[in-house]
Amino acid sequence: MDRIMKERTGVGYAKRLFLEAIMPLKRTEKAEISDCVGRVISSSILAPRNVPHYRRSAMDGFAVRSADIIGASPTNPVMLQVSDDIEEGSSVQVSTGEYVPDEADAVIMLEDTISIGDMIEVRAQVHPGKNIGDVGEDVRKNEIIFNKGHQLRACDIAVLASLGIKEVTVYSKPVVAILPTGNDLIPLKDNEVPSPGKTLDINSLMIGLYVTKWGAEPRYCDIVSEDRDLIEEATKNNLDADFIVVSGGTSVGEKDFVPGVVASLGKKLVHGVGLSPGKPTALGIIDNVPVLCMPGYPAAGLVALFAFGKPAILKTGNLPEMPDLTVKARLTGKINSREGYVSYARVILEEDSGQTLARPLMTAGAGILSSMAKSGGFVIIPENVEGYEEGNEVDVVLIE
Amino acid sequence: MDRIMKERTGVGYAKRLFLEAIMPLKRTEKAEISDCVGRVISSSILAPRNVPHYRRSAMDGFAVRSADIIGASPTNPVMLQVSDDIEEGSSVQVSTGEYVPDEADAVIMLEDTISIGDMIEVRAQVHPGKNIGDVGEDVRKNEIIFNKGHQLRACDIAVLASLGIKEVTVYSKPVVAILPTGNDLIPLKDNEVPSPGKTLDINSLMIGLYVTKWGAEPRYCDIVSEDRDLIEEATKNNLDADFIVVSGGTSVGEKDFVPGVVASLGKKLVHGVGLSPGKPTALGIIDNVPVLCMPGYPAAGLVALFAFGKPAILKTGNLPEMPDLTVKARLTGKINSREGYVSYARVILEEDSGQTLARPLMTAGAGILSSMAKSGGFVIIPENVEGYEEGNEVDVVLIE
Repeated sequence: MDRIMKERTGVGYAKRLFLEAIMPLKRTEKAEISDCVGRVISSSILAPRNVPHYRRSAMDGFAVRSADIIGASPTNPVMLQVSDDIEEGSSVQVSTGEYVPDEADAVIMLEDTISIGDMIEVRAQVHPGKNIGDVGEDVRKNEIIFNKGHQLRACDIAVLASLGIKEVTVYSKPVVAILPTGNDLIPLKDNEVPSPGKTLDINSLMIGLYVTKWGAEPRYCDIVSEDRDLIEEATKNNLDADFIVVSGGTSVGEKDFVPGVVASLGKKLVHGVGLSPGKPTALGIIDNVPVLCMPGYPAAGLVALFAFGKPAILKTGNLPEMPDLTVKARLTGKINSREGYVSYARVILEEDSGQTLARPLMTAGAGILSSMAKSGGFVIIPENVEGYEEGNEVDVVLIE
Repeated sequence: MDRIMKERTGVGYAKRLFLEAIMPLKRTEKAEISDCVGRVISSSILAPRNVPHYRRSAMDGFAVRSADIIGASPTNPVMLQVSDDIEEGSSVQVSTGEYVPDEADAVIMLEDTISIGDMIEVRAQVHPGKNIGDVGEDVRKNEIIFNKGHQLRACDIAVLASLGIKEVTVYSKPVVAILPTGNDLIPLKDNEVPSPGKTLDINSLMIGLYVTKWGAEPRYCDIVSEDRDLIEEATKNNLDADFIVVSGGTSVGEKDFVPGVVASLGKKLVHGVGLSPGKPTALGIIDNVPVLCMPGYPAAGLVALFAFGKPAILKTGNLPEMPDLTVKARLTGKINSREGYVSYARVILEEDSGQTLARPLMTAGAGILSSMAKSGGFVIIPENVEGYEEGNEVDVVLIE
């Protein structure tokens, strides 16, 4: 019998223990910028050149020597030659963003001039430097553009491209080994109707797809039978990964060896959490590799994966926490919670005359498949709240 | 001079006009379920089999014939043989989820039995059907699992896998042709420092990366010079795409031909919107292909892409609107807006003793590059609001 399992660790505390034990990955790799949306840079990036790297006009107008037009005004205009070079008494037409010849020290706006043949009548004076963007005005050479740890967005990659940067060094994606356990499991690729009592291993695929979405690389492992030695061997074989998710085998039945294996190979932090569904979850660390043991029932496993796996995998991969997408909705029925548990209640989202409604799903023990397909989100009920009443406005966390 | 440009269409109205003119794509394709996270199914999916497809036990216990244990109680227990088959007076041990032999009609919980050698003492009676999950209890064969238009999540794909479905029919990804225009543009692949007055085409890459993120497929086109015939030809050549984004060439300068080309080939809906930055945006439809003409300045183009491109591309691809990720933050300085414009003010997000602060970026006309790199989000100021004061709590839309 497992003491900690009986004691039931609070979700917040369990998550903190787990995250504190996780060291973000140090491994890095070079990648082309166009492959780097969502990647995190492992060292600060300096601007390799000035932007602009030439003096550019901030206006449509004429590059001039400001000394040539001192005192110009509508009543006292100055005539300048329009030319290809600047010398005393001449000007060069420029558009916004264009190169301003070195000999010019200002740009006079188009609106302050009148074209007369190959001359312009200048009707205003300008200060030296007026309407010219200096070299390095936007980005100065060697300035830090992005700090270490910044997660690159598409617009950032455009900025890198404009600086002539083609490749950056980013943290590698953490490799997440996915270990399905269970005697009744059969691999998904044996896709015929499983014989009675057998279950297709759908969790591996589900975990793998989420892990990929969260910026990691799944490693799909073979199904391991409920045998202590085999589970230990499979776990050891995957300690070269950066994270291990074990699916199934984490209750306190006599055959549920997984948390015991974690404890014997490394440090079991938590076994049994105040999470509903998802109570049998166990968390540990073996040789600096975080291990999440999640329940084999897909719906309970999913909740454990969201509550513990996602933040832990993000931390492992040096990725910032992702805020959950939530919508406000009105409950069409009561939701009860389990005292002392953080409850994830599945709801169907419906639109009704401009209002969003959340219809609680009545989930029978085994009826997990259809409930996952139907539910749009979770109402997360904290430990100290008894539940919510019909008509309450609640936050629904959308299932990603 | 362009009348509509002068009139300035409101952002909300312009977006509605554009979206109403867009027909979601009808093209479909088959795809393996593991490639379908985020894809939208083009017809409803029916369950090809029952789940469970066998009668399964809802408890750890013994499958029995309920008639054999009528009246059983702690004071009046009934003895049953533990066997491999069910016949009168025998029972079969079952775990949760396991196959219940056809001859049994109930499962008695482990807790209500005492093992004695190869016999059990049964200390409770059960109704027929008790603790048995019937065939199809969870999902019934031919029941609709997902409706047409549902966007598949990883957990949905697990549900499909469990039903033995390997492949689904989804809407094709819309092909978005990206047409950069401008005489001063040079392709990114010519990655040396551009000569003075020349600008690297970074917009194509930026648009392409966002478009990919939004579930579409970018088609990168060659840079087109500011020549009416060439722009018309390039546009015509891309009418086999599902969407066209033209970058640049959309002001009202004499060389800005793009909206004129849209008007002559199809229907120009809007030219000039109350969006700051992003005013020169034009929207139109040619042969059912939506065309977004966005300003060539990256920061203004980005705002136009978010305000009009994203919802339009999602609609084209049959994808649901994505809610923006927002955070609440306190302004460290005043933000002014332009009257009659929806203003996207860029802010730097900072954490200060547990509070999130939004520091407005002072963006000089040309200083667009560094402002994009630095800003974490936009404060979007509606047309009828003058601006926000220092200390105001505002919603910051995170730049994705």
